[in-house]
Amino acid sequence: LDYQHVQVPFEITLWIMLASLAKIGFHLYNKLPSVVPESCLLIFVGLIMGGIIYGLNDKSPPVMDSDIFFLYLLPPIVLDAGYFMPSRPFFENIGTILLYAVVGTIWNVFGIGFSLYGICQVKAFRLQDVSLLHNLLFGSLIAAVDPVAVLAVFEEIHVNEKLHILVFGESLLNDAVTVVLYKLFRSFCEMPTIKSVDVFAGVGKFFVVGLGGVLVGLSFGMTAAFTTRFTKDIRVIEPLFVFLYSYLSYLTAEMFHLSGIMAIIACAMGMKRYVEANISLKSHTTVKYFMKMWSSVSDTLIFIFLGVSTIGENHEWNWPYICFTVIFCLVWRALGVLVLTFFVNRFHVNTITSKDQFIIAYGGLRGAICFSLVFLLPDFHRKKLFIAATTVVILFTVFVQGMTIRPLVDLLAVKRKRESAPTVGEQIHIRFLDHLLAGIEDISGHWGQYYWKDKLEYFNSKYLQKILLREYDQPKSSIVLLYEKLERKHAIELAEAGQLGHTLPHPSFLCSGFLCSNSDRTVVTDQKLEDTLNLDVLENIQEILARNLYRIRRMGPAYNRHTLPGETEPGEHAKEILILRHRSL
Amino acid sequence: LDYQHVQVPFEITLWIMLASLAKIGFHLYNKLPSVVPESCLLIFVGLIMGGIIYGLNDKSPPVMDSDIFFLYLLPPIVLDAGYFMPSRPFFENIGTILLYAVVGTIWNVFGIGFSLYGICQVKAFRLQDVSLLHNLLFGSLIAAVDPVAVLAVFEEIHVNEKLHILVFGESLLNDAVTVVLYKLFRSFCEMPTIKSVDVFAGVGKFFVVGLGGVLVGLSFGMTAAFTTRFTKDIRVIEPLFVFLYSYLSYLTAEMFHLSGIMAIIACAMGMKRYVEANISLKSHTTVKYFMKMWSSVSDTLIFIFLGVSTIGENHEWNWPYICFTVIFCLVWRALGVLVLTFFVNRFHVNTITSKDQFIIAYGGLRGAICFSLVFLLPDFHRKKLFIAATTVVILFTVFVQGMTIRPLVDLLAVKRKRESAPTVGEQIHIRFLDHLLAGIEDISGHWGQYYWKDKLEYFNSKYLQKILLREYDQPKSSIVLLYEKLERKHAIELAEAGQLGHTLPHPSFLCSGFLCSNSDRTVVTDQKLEDTLNLDVLENIQEILARNLYRIRRMGPAYNRHTLPGETEPGEHAKEILILRHRSL
Repeated sequence: LDYQHVQVPFEITLWIMLASLAKIGFHLYNKLPSVVPESCLLIFVGLIMGGIIYGLNDKSPPVMDSDIFFLYLLPPIVLDAGYFMPSRPFFENIGTILLYAVVGTIWNVFGIGFSLYGICQVKAFRLQDVSLLHNLLFGSLIAAVDPVAVLAVFEEIHVNEKLHILVFGESLLNDAVTVVLYKLFRSFCEMPTIKSVDVFAGVGKFFVVGLGGVLVGLSFGMTAAFTTRFTKDIRVIEPLFVFLYSYLSYLTAEMFHLSGIMAIIACAMGMKRYVEANISLKSHTTVKYFMKMWSSVSDTLIFIFLGVSTIGENHEWNWPYICFTVIFCLVWRALGVLVLTFFVNRFHVNTITSKDQFIIAYGGLRGAICFSLVFLLPDFHRKKLFIAATTVVILFTVFVQGMTIRPLVDLLAVKRKRESAPTVGEQIHIRFLDHLLAGIEDISGHWGQYYWKDKLEYFNSKYLQKILLREYDQPKSSIVLLYEKLERKHAIELAEAGQLGHTLPHPSFLCSGFLCSNSDRTVVTDQKLEDTLNLDVLENIQEILARNLYRIRRMGPAYNRHTLPGETEPGEHAKEILILRHRSL
Repeated sequence: LDYQHVQVPFEITLWIMLASLAKIGFHLYNKLPSVVPESCLLIFVGLIMGGIIYGLNDKSPPVMDSDIFFLYLLPPIVLDAGYFMPSRPFFENIGTILLYAVVGTIWNVFGIGFSLYGICQVKAFRLQDVSLLHNLLFGSLIAAVDPVAVLAVFEEIHVNEKLHILVFGESLLNDAVTVVLYKLFRSFCEMPTIKSVDVFAGVGKFFVVGLGGVLVGLSFGMTAAFTTRFTKDIRVIEPLFVFLYSYLSYLTAEMFHLSGIMAIIACAMGMKRYVEANISLKSHTTVKYFMKMWSSVSDTLIFIFLGVSTIGENHEWNWPYICFTVIFCLVWRALGVLVLTFFVNRFHVNTITSKDQFIIAYGGLRGAICFSLVFLLPDFHRKKLFIAATTVVILFTVFVQGMTIRPLVDLLAVKRKRESAPTVGEQIHIRFLDHLLAGIEDISGHWGQYYWKDKLEYFNSKYLQKILLREYDQPKSSIVLLYEKLERKHAIELAEAGQLGHTLPHPSFLCSGFLCSNSDRTVVTDQKLEDTLNLDVLENIQEILARNLYRIRRMGPAYNRHTLPGETEPGEHAKEILILRHRSL
């Protein structure tokens, strides 16, 4: 027996196997997942395993390594989140999301930090040695909502799209704020004196870390799209590039102390559109499937490890501090959401209802990121207190909030997500309204969301597509793609129901069809002659959709009062807008 | 900048990226891959990179770590080979393959070992300090044909199926022999005296290592099939089990010093059939795609590393020894093939032609396995000589033999692989002949290949399928599956050509179809009423195929002279055969 030799891969494989089997086990009993969220069950499994290890070895079970978490477990989940991010609701609510993520997180950090410092002044609690800076440092790691925990719970309760994207978007984008504040306070803790210059440098760092991450991500995303232009002859390694480039963007961002989460999300969202057009259908299925699989396994492992790491002797149970931490986390988040939403609602027609506000505040789950950050703290005499408080906050939010949020959503009758995907008709109407609004914004001289979207679309079709897409002469509209997808699905359904039989003229043919698959070809050509008319009609429709809907703005700018059709060019366009803008001012 | 932190994953990702980009690069020029095999080009890239590293650092570039090779790079390739192994030709030629793999490899090891020892006795070469045992140890690592190298070259030259499976099967199954002989001679080298008991123990180990590996693999394969019975509700982690279980089988076998290659091949071949029936179509696409992708990347990395590791100061250039190694490798393999084939041809109707024999002998490429084994040798003063000889043999076989084998195949007009897949008609005929032969064997009392195949099929449908398959009440014949696949493909082709339009009654319907995808449903039901006849005919045919072809032996044993239809039961069957056997003796 030579266990030493294979230990590392063997144990990794066994952990993944355990995670997968646990997942299967839960789904065998259909009722269980509908009552208890999977994340709770997984933590529970972890707790049991941790207990067993603790009981057998009589020492604390191994704690989840922060490096493993940040380098191997987190990226797949974030990649999956970024790749499947519904881009329309995300960009429509980007302002609100950023407000919650940046201002809201800062509010929580300082709120929790200062009020815990206040608690530390109470002599009865014997916490006077915890300084303000340490409290703020703790606040910075406990304040941030965790994307993994949020995703695990919100995927199961199916609230409406806007509410989902607000909570989930916040949990992703607050990474830059968390990273900066955490590192700032940690370096302040080690500095003898703090100058005001350092504080300003910290504020400047926000933008560097956040925007730097986005830039790194976008550049890797574009490179990935460009690379897939050349994979036509070796389809089999296409999926690899999606994973390699996004992982590289994450690692590069981490290397330069930028926000890795922002980088990987920017990379995934940037490349998705071009990569999908370049790679084959099967490669695409593989990419989607493997991304989901990987993130689901990572997620499972994280929750199991959370459970395992909870058991042991790493904790200092000072109950007043721990209880007040939980209370402050809840109170400050609720206050923050109320105040910020008040401002948001003043500037929006489509307001956030008070029910939605409650769910946003209540959905602020904490998870593995806080847990990894608290273990990364430099050693000082109260570290074990912080670990205990973090553990309790995570378990409280995941178990109590995670398990009660579904009944609450039912009780409050929060607006749910619509079940069916939008039909082609709806898509056409949405697209039409977009163009209409872009035109109205153009005429009125208001540089709004639709104006920028339209500009971006123009830049995309004029330059990016030509560089990044293989067949740039035929960029298909998403509606045409959807139509093709429906047709394909329909065909497969027909084939599986045995309905395709009617393309075969009479039963005697069936036998020859059995004996030689080539004869199928002749049927196709026969049918072609018969159905020329239908084919023509279909092609016409596809052509009309592809040509006219996409670039209607440039093809026939009928809503522009100052030019004749066909006259407009990009340069003139820009001038026109300036003139309009000038007048409206 | 914090490079230390992300170094490990960053460098791994970069190496994989380099490998993938190199692959894309070669395929951009269509002419290059048709002249030079990819493996040569990759080694060349490796040589250049090694040269650059050597030039910059002024020290030998890092050598491919044997652990990394055996634990991470080899398994994906072997898994891919086992999973996509054409099982029919493999089992039809299993005897010949085993003869080549076991007897042939032993022949080569002792041939090369003893004749090199002879060379060492020539005083002019100054090699008298290399003992017989060291020469035999060297022989044991250099004798084995390498599956990775064989696969890389033979995939491109498309020789006929039998020839391909003979060379490729041998390269896979000789692993057990290589492992045993290598470990045996290595331990002999370290022993003071060798008793005859040790030699007999070595012979016994052959069977333990080989059969043990197969058993480990089969048990993991069956567990994998059993696990996928329960994944119906979480399709997304299905592909994972295929990879996890096969990797575990490899690691477990390695842990117990069994043949990991045999284990992973047995696991993949054993589970394939059941896993494919249990998992969804999309999961299956993902499994196939990812396996191909992974093995192709591993393969690329191996050849690049081979090139990189060649550069440096690890070599002792004693040219007589090196040249004679190359010559003996060629000569002993050619002799071995000639002698073994002579015996094989005496017992087979379908003989191996002399052209095929030449290609078998010439296709004995060496590769990364030898290379990793030679670095695993314990340190002794002539290790560098062995490294140099191994490197030259690998480069000679991959470059000279690998590049000339394609022109030779053209020149000799070796029978090629048929391009098209077998049609449904051919499959029916093959199946029919199998049943006929099984019947003939049964009557004549000869326990041949078809008899055992039939027994295995019976055992499978009676017990294994019921345990391992989810819907065991409906085991579909492979012909029905093929028919369904053709139907589906046909449907997609129709949809993509816009031919499905004729299911929509008239053009006015198209608009409503656009606006609501649900109306497609109503069309299907409409069609159903119209095509009931066709549907019935189709279902009948499927039913007839599924019921009658598969278990014809037990349903109506008309070819059995001693029982009335419907009388036979498994127990009686066995008795009958015994009686028949008795009589024929």
